[in-house]
Amino acid sequence: MTSGDGTRKSQPTIYDVARLAGVAPSTVSRAFARPGRVNADTAQRIREAAAQLGYRANPVARALSTSRTRMIALMISDVTNPYYSELIRGAQLAASQEEYTVLLTDARESDVVERESLERVLPVVEGIVIGSSRMSDSTLRVIAKQTPMIVLNRHLAGIPSVVTDNPRGVRRAVEHLGELGHEHITYVAGPEASWADGMRWRALREAGHELHLHTRRVGPVAPTLQGGRDARALLRPHLPTAVICYNDLVAIGLMRTLTAEGVRIPDDVSVVGFDNILPAELVSPGLTTVASPLRTLGSTAVGNLLAIIRGALHTTDKPFVLPTRLVVRESTGRTARR
Amino acid sequence: MTSGDGTRKSQPTIYDVARLAGVAPSTVSRAFARPGRVNADTAQRIREAAAQLGYRANPVARALSTSRTRMIALMISDVTNPYYSELIRGAQLAASQEEYTVLLTDARESDVVERESLERVLPVVEGIVIGSSRMSDSTLRVIAKQTPMIVLNRHLAGIPSVVTDNPRGVRRAVEHLGELGHEHITYVAGPEASWADGMRWRALREAGHELHLHTRRVGPVAPTLQGGRDARALLRPHLPTAVICYNDLVAIGLMRTLTAEGVRIPDDVSVVGFDNILPAELVSPGLTTVASPLRTLGSTAVGNLLAIIRGALHTTDKPFVLPTRLVVRESTGRTARR
Repeated sequence: MTSGDGTRKSQPTIYDVARLAGVAPSTVSRAFARPGRVNADTAQRIREAAAQLGYRANPVARALSTSRTRMIALMISDVTNPYYSELIRGAQLAASQEEYTVLLTDARESDVVERESLERVLPVVEGIVIGSSRMSDSTLRVIAKQTPMIVLNRHLAGIPSVVTDNPRGVRRAVEHLGELGHEHITYVAGPEASWADGMRWRALREAGHELHLHTRRVGPVAPTLQGGRDARALLRPHLPTAVICYNDLVAIGLMRTLTAEGVRIPDDVSVVGFDNILPAELVSPGLTTVASPLRTLGSTAVGNLLAIIRGALHTTDKPFVLPTRLVVRESTGRTARR
Repeated sequence: MTSGDGTRKSQPTIYDVARLAGVAPSTVSRAFARPGRVNADTAQRIREAAAQLGYRANPVARALSTSRTRMIALMISDVTNPYYSELIRGAQLAASQEEYTVLLTDARESDVVERESLERVLPVVEGIVIGSSRMSDSTLRVIAKQTPMIVLNRHLAGIPSVVTDNPRGVRRAVEHLGELGHEHITYVAGPEASWADGMRWRALREAGHELHLHTRRVGPVAPTLQGGRDARALLRPHLPTAVICYNDLVAIGLMRTLTAEGVRIPDDVSVVGFDNILPAELVSPGLTTVASPLRTLGSTAVGNLLAIIRGALHTTDKPFVLPTRLVVRESTGRTARR
């Protein structure tokens, strides 16, 4: 194409499209940015002009297409928790394969923020994945009646959910500690509202009973590094030889506090976490942990949600259970104390 | 209120609202989930019925309000990189204060995915923060003409951007290594398309020149732990006494590879990173790093974007520069070698 002064241009611009369509450049711009705000005839004329000029090649031109942006929401409690990095990646992967975009909300561990976020996303999304929530079961049930929903790491009768196999993971951790000669295991509990916390403690008690090991529970503490530091005071006066923590952040916070005191890990205390977040591999000693398939958790939740949006019936009352596995690193070993 | 069988119910449901409004329950559900798909009179009747029954108390009821969901997009290159955790938190904080919701896109380090994401979000957002992009300067300029935009960690004339003070941060790191007696500093470069990489290497050369230290550059490597492992081979045959890496992940990957070989850090090699992500504090030895104010970076970008959306003029051609600081930990020390 040739511009007014006869020189050859490398790429058509919105000004060329505007001239050919007989509209103002600002109208072209608006048609690209927010199709709904330009009337249908004008949008059609702009679309044709863009096509004629080869403006199609531009990445934004396709926003002119009549297909609307399809969105789902992923609601999580704390975006700074490394636990969510891989989970978000998995959710994004599954969504983008089906040309859905993910609205991410971050509750910052506050129920007020969570409700506000929910109100903002509900009108624009086709479904919601609740990554972790402080909302009550009854509130979640009300929302589930109004929009397709998947709940992660929580089980509510009648609501589709995806969870990890906590009992099996706990069992493997307890067997591992038993084989190393530990006779007492202390569980550092996470938030009381956490479904996973209840599952882990119950599974620990059961596994301990079957394998003839003593178990006890301390806490709860916050599910953070600081929570792990706070847990130190709960382990007085007698430091146990084996500790299983609610999650990796708590385990790492506790290990660092103990190490700073001169306590040797694993010689004096063996420590086990949950999740297998990136820092679990990076700390010294490396953290033994019950690994969750975080990316699969995100992608499975979104995959199931999209199936429901398309009309799949949720016919079972059981959660969709993903396998866990024990990753053994250097934070667990034979006890050197009695 | 009283149900048909005379028992008192604890909470009104959509069925109660439907009966009072004289519509099907599915219509009430649709009115809550997607207001635009129910006609205005019906929506009004449902709104009144909900108000009369006290259904307002429900968090989803407010989705009936006529205010639309206002969205901005945050486009990042790799959601699994811990660098983005705090940045996303900052962006979410600033957005939610102004009642905006953040659409997060994850390019997974692919320019194809990035373009597809852009096409999907453009029609529904009021503005975009480009957290990191493989798109060319000219593509970004075309998009900036069509929608308000802020670019992070990159400087394009005429486009508002927020960057961190790389020259000052590099200067502090070089002074620190000089004071420890190092005479040669090797820079492990990140992606060639990275604006920050160019800034860091140039600032390192300048600081080295002024302080009479020798500098050299190896790489590029990927901005990941694996990139750091790959960097080991680039430091043969003579291991330098001081290395500055493109970012913390590269520095941590390199440190782990060196430690596994029996190289002592910092006795044999001092290592410095950039960013101060969470793992920098958690690894042993702790990583000395040029800290970026990640949360402030996210909140400043969104704050500036919202100002532009409201009509603020972008009057300067200079990026908005945020301060950096050197966090000294155990990975740097006096050289024990010559």
